Amino acid sequence: MSVNETQPKPLPSGSTIGILGGGQLGRMLSLAASRLGFKTHIFCPDPQSPAFDVTPHKTVAAYDDAAALQRFAEAVDIVTYEFENVPAATAEILSRIKPLRPGANALAISQDRLAEKAFLASKNIPVAPYRAVETNADLADAIAALGLPAVLKTTRLGYDGKGQRTLGSDADLAPAFADLSPKPLVLEGFIPFSKEISVVVARSLTGEVKAYDPAENVHRNHILHTSTVPATISPTLARQAGMIATAIVIALDYVGVLGVEFFVVPADGRETLLVNEIAPRVHNSGHWTEAVCLTDQFEQHIRAIAGWPLGDPARLADVVMENLIGDEVLALPANLDGDTQPHLYGKAEARPGRKMGHINRIGRN
Amino acid sequence: MSVNETQPKPLPSGSTIGILGGGQLGRMLSLAASRLGFKTHIFCPDPQSPAFDVTPHKTVAAYDDAAALQRFAEAVDIVTYEFENVPAATAEILSRIKPLRPGANALAISQDRLAEKAFLASKNIPVAPYRAVETNADLADAIAALGLPAVLKTTRLGYDGKGQRTLGSDADLAPAFADLSPKPLVLEGFIPFSKEISVVVARSLTGEVKAYDPAENVHRNHILHTSTVPATISPTLARQAGMIATAIVIALDYVGVLGVEFFVVPADGRETLLVNEIAPRVHNSGHWTEAVCLTDQFEQHIRAIAGWPLGDPARLADVVMENLIGDEVLALPANLDGDTQPHLYGKAEARPGRKMGHINRIGRN
Repeated sequence: MSVNETQPKPLPSGSTIGILGGGQLGRMLSLAASRLGFKTHIFCPDPQSPAFDVTPHKTVAAYDDAAALQRFAEAVDIVTYEFENVPAATAEILSRIKPLRPGANALAISQDRLAEKAFLASKNIPVAPYRAVETNADLADAIAALGLPAVLKTTRLGYDGKGQRTLGSDADLAPAFADLSPKPLVLEGFIPFSKEISVVVARSLTGEVKAYDPAENVHRNHILHTSTVPATISPTLARQAGMIATAIVIALDYVGVLGVEFFVVPADGRETLLVNEIAPRVHNSGHWTEAVCLTDQFEQHIRAIAGWPLGDPARLADVVMENLIGDEVLALPANLDGDTQPHLYGKAEARPGRKMGHINRIGRN
Repeated sequence: MSVNETQPKPLPSGSTIGILGGGQLGRMLSLAASRLGFKTHIFCPDPQSPAFDVTPHKTVAAYDDAAALQRFAEAVDIVTYEFENVPAATAEILSRIKPLRPGANALAISQDRLAEKAFLASKNIPVAPYRAVETNADLADAIAALGLPAVLKTTRLGYDGKGQRTLGSDADLAPAFADLSPKPLVLEGFIPFSKEISVVVARSLTGEVKAYDPAENVHRNHILHTSTVPATISPTLARQAGMIATAIVIALDYVGVLGVEFFVVPADGRETLLVNEIAPRVHNSGHWTEAVCLTDQFEQHIRAIAGWPLGDPARLADVVMENLIGDEVLALPANLDGDTQPHLYGKAEARPGRKMGHINRIGRN
């Protein structure tokens, strides 16, 4: 839906929001929607989805089950999603019946690394140097252009370090290509970044934009470990990050919350920003907003897609968000400090590498 | 359950919390339990209960349906409630099968004004002067002792101004008595209070106690209109209110969150406190905690009854909570300011006098 259409009417409280995806993000979106008086309906193929525990309305079906998608869309008032890998055909079926927010173009761009980089570059937003790779010869050409080390990635369906290989020497090329091909690939030049930060930004149906403070992110085993706010960057760089995130949602004619990951790159004694990737949804590195912001990212997303005015993203305290991976969650509640706000996802099985919950350690200013 | 028993084990995340009552308090308790990874099961006779929209597990049955209560208790791990008027027989059935928290003694005391006042007075906690009234002669004697004006109330099942009459002159006595009897009644002496405040306090299964800052409450038509924090009282009086609330939960061997309403009474150039009433549950005058506290009253209640450590009740900002009664809710979302955090209850029909939601206006310090 374009913001240039006639001024949209806000979706009344009591309406039903359909959510594609029943993981922790879908669950937290549902809880936020409930706080605004909305009903939610979760669509997910996994009958054990954690989001099924927070609403009586669910559809258990595959994402390409056209009949189930149609019934789902007819049962809800608007549709949103917790993950960017919604198939294009799925988005098409749903958006024919009910408003899909964020829109299909945000999905198409963000679910393909090449399309995303091309889009960002076309808007003069700085990204790491990259080359498309379909053949071994492409890879050799790309290495010649970008040098080593470099990172070879599938263009689609990668997350948490899956679908990528770091190339350190020529000996790494053939095995990495064999491993990842025949999927379309992209080679990204190695970025000697000093920090990773991210900005969660929201744009409303009327075009209003609000960005949260940047978070500084630390990964472990390619999975987000902590997000710390404020990030240890200059106020100038923080403002730049917010402006880039704002430029992206405007360029996409976006509605909802979007996460933008940046590399902070030292150059000539100062720091510059490159966009690593964008995610058209609430973002793990924005979970701290629930503990310390006037409006958290989940409520902000629901407000945006419902055509409500955005809330204030202002932050009342410093905070460190820490993911609880696998059996780390079992240490709770025994070691729960008073100034720690836990959020657990109700997943039955604490498998290694699985995000089971997070905690926010709140530092009073 | 007494805190003097063997050290209890915390209820593991993923367990099921049974909640008696499907109104907004049950709904907000369910949402808080979900944030800690618990499942919830709501028991309520009203098939349109707003809490039924935030969990797939419900029982629609009368509170005296023994078979339904038994099935419910067997399906959950612990039981709590959103209202103090749980019948004693209901509490007895449930607590035979699963832990009922807060316990039956808190219910017995708080659902009877006479028992409550006698309990408080026995603990040297100041209450308004009162007399039990069963006959017209009792009423005449009580008026002789306490004077006019005074307030005649049913001892049980009064709320939001229901079940009470203010007596201004002798002519009011007979009609008020005729109207309220043959229920057991209590006459309360008129208190020339300057303000009403309340304290929400929590006690854990291990006896830990934490109190929130006092809120200053304004009523309209006998229904809470606003709660403002901080209250305009001296630090000394605020501390006293917290200490009285703490003394009450200790005296009750209480587990969970409890609300204590006070009158602030000017006397000899200073202010003193009288306890007006207590409520063994999360409290409308504590809804501000969700917007600005490290741990809100709903999560605090769930932590307490689950045997988890209590969270920090510290407050990060000033706040005014305002109830949205009846069609006041229809003004949202259009007039929603950025610094306003709304919480709507998803009730289908905005009947006059019905609590439909609330907003928290957050003032940054």
